Amino acid sequence: MKLTILGCYAATPRTMTNPTSQVLEIKNQMFLIDCGEGTQVQLRKHKIRFSKINHIFISHLHGDHFFGLPGLVSTFRLLGRDTEMHIYGPKGIEEAINLLLKLGNSWTNYKLIFHELTSKESELIYEDDKVTVKTIPLNHRVYTNGFLFQEKLSSRTLDIEAVESYGIEVCYYQNIKNGRDITLDDGRVIPNDELTFDPPKPKSYAFCSDTAYKPDIVPLIKGVDVLYHESTFLETQAELAPKTKHSTAKEAAAIAKQANVGQLILGHYSTRYKSIDLFKEEALEVFDKVLLADDGKVFNF
Amino acid sequence: MKLTILGCYAATPRTMTNPTSQVLEIKNQMFLIDCGEGTQVQLRKHKIRFSKINHIFISHLHGDHFFGLPGLVSTFRLLGRDTEMHIYGPKGIEEAINLLLKLGNSWTNYKLIFHELTSKESELIYEDDKVTVKTIPLNHRVYTNGFLFQEKLSSRTLDIEAVESYGIEVCYYQNIKNGRDITLDDGRVIPNDELTFDPPKPKSYAFCSDTAYKPDIVPLIKGVDVLYHESTFLETQAELAPKTKHSTAKEAAAIAKQANVGQLILGHYSTRYKSIDLFKEEALEVFDKVLLADDGKVFNF
Repeated sequence: MKLTILGCYAATPRTMTNPTSQVLEIKNQMFLIDCGEGTQVQLRKHKIRFSKINHIFISHLHGDHFFGLPGLVSTFRLLGRDTEMHIYGPKGIEEAINLLLKLGNSWTNYKLIFHELTSKESELIYEDDKVTVKTIPLNHRVYTNGFLFQEKLSSRTLDIEAVESYGIEVCYYQNIKNGRDITLDDGRVIPNDELTFDPPKPKSYAFCSDTAYKPDIVPLIKGVDVLYHESTFLETQAELAPKTKHSTAKEAAAIAKQANVGQLILGHYSTRYKSIDLFKEEALEVFDKVLLADDGKVFNF
Repeated sequence: MKLTILGCYAATPRTMTNPTSQVLEIKNQMFLIDCGEGTQVQLRKHKIRFSKINHIFISHLHGDHFFGLPGLVSTFRLLGRDTEMHIYGPKGIEEAINLLLKLGNSWTNYKLIFHELTSKESELIYEDDKVTVKTIPLNHRVYTNGFLFQEKLSSRTLDIEAVESYGIEVCYYQNIKNGRDITLDDGRVIPNDELTFDPPKPKSYAFCSDTAYKPDIVPLIKGVDVLYHESTFLETQAELAPKTKHSTAKEAAAIAKQANVGQLILGHYSTRYKSIDLFKEEALEVFDKVLLADDGKVFNF
């Protein structure tokens, strides 16, 4: 998986910082997560091909996560897109986008398919042969979901040296890849795991923004490789976190620790802070694997 | 008047170019004209104080003139605005902004007053003691207005040398500024124009974007000091202009010539062109006072 942070600051776009948006690449498939104002410019800046995005996930309908979407939808049209675009987000997102397209008399030439979310329980919202995406219900001022991306276990791969050493013919290779044992001409049965390599461990990524401290998401994200968790505030403004239904860096770290995640990435910093270094310092007091998101940063895992 | 171009390119925001938005300053009052995506970042970049903007004029509801407005309205709230904001634009603009605010549960703390436009005739939409604003009905793919900003004639100013030379007492100064003649103690009547200077000639600015070539706007903008007229295409793509209801540089210049304007500023360039110099060259074949808008440029007149 490759995660590109297009924007990771709270509230309003500014000259040097962008509101929330990120692109998750899984096996050559691009998933766009949130779409604050300016996202399409960030996509251009980071040379992400618009045509490779087919699925957009919107956590909630606050401007800093959503106001770049009408423009992006329009730009896809101007770029001549003709393939379907799927948009997953809170109920109301279809009405909003459709109203803006209607007022501009700018209906898309491609098919725009909305998957409106209303459930307060985690649900499977996307599945293909390589990936599943589930919602992570969060606690914010409006209806909000995080998203859990999980790779599926891929097929076992042929251990070509082993296979050849037994003189197995090519016509049996597909059976071996499918997990079958092989009976040789002399009657010996070779178990599949002697002829194949284990597939790589499937990776998982959880995006959790925006939310107050919500420990009941822990079972949903238990053991994920990477957790992006919002950390709007430092300890000096900790009293604002429950009021605004955001989290502190320490609270994000507490979630990461309870869920025993492989890596915590912090983001959604309030723009009141001159430097983001303190977010890492404070989180490290609670959990030891902390990285800081920043606009333009790329994480490979 | 001081005109700051925040963005003057057509269609989509890109890394180095912005969609339409400009700020017109008249006697310390700021008018925002159009609001493409990224306008609020451009305002910050050019150090224009958000609190000085009280009136926003939207020509039409295409994204490249309008999709920055929801974010700007939200940012005003986050910045603690409490004074009224007036928004002038096509019917539907209130429904669109209100829906987005409702979905985000982010109603403004300040009063948002919409002035929805539907007339196909020019109408007076704003007036204070210094300025009037009238619509300029344009011909585009959706209902579109340009805007004509006209300063009012200000008061005559005292010619203090002349006044003192006649020994006129200070208590008469206000009468003189108001245009009265003065009768001296010896019975002589001094006509007002001997005691005052003419006020400066009121300036006028016409913003015309987006529109097909539309000569019937000429009487409305006759003799304006500055005309900003869209010029989406060069002659090589002239056949696209009527199809998309845009203008070429030559057509913009033809309007400027017929209206005998003081200065033509070209803008709304299609992003297909690598350089904008040719727009000026082509317009100069028709009209001799041509300037090119560009993002960040400031025009004082």
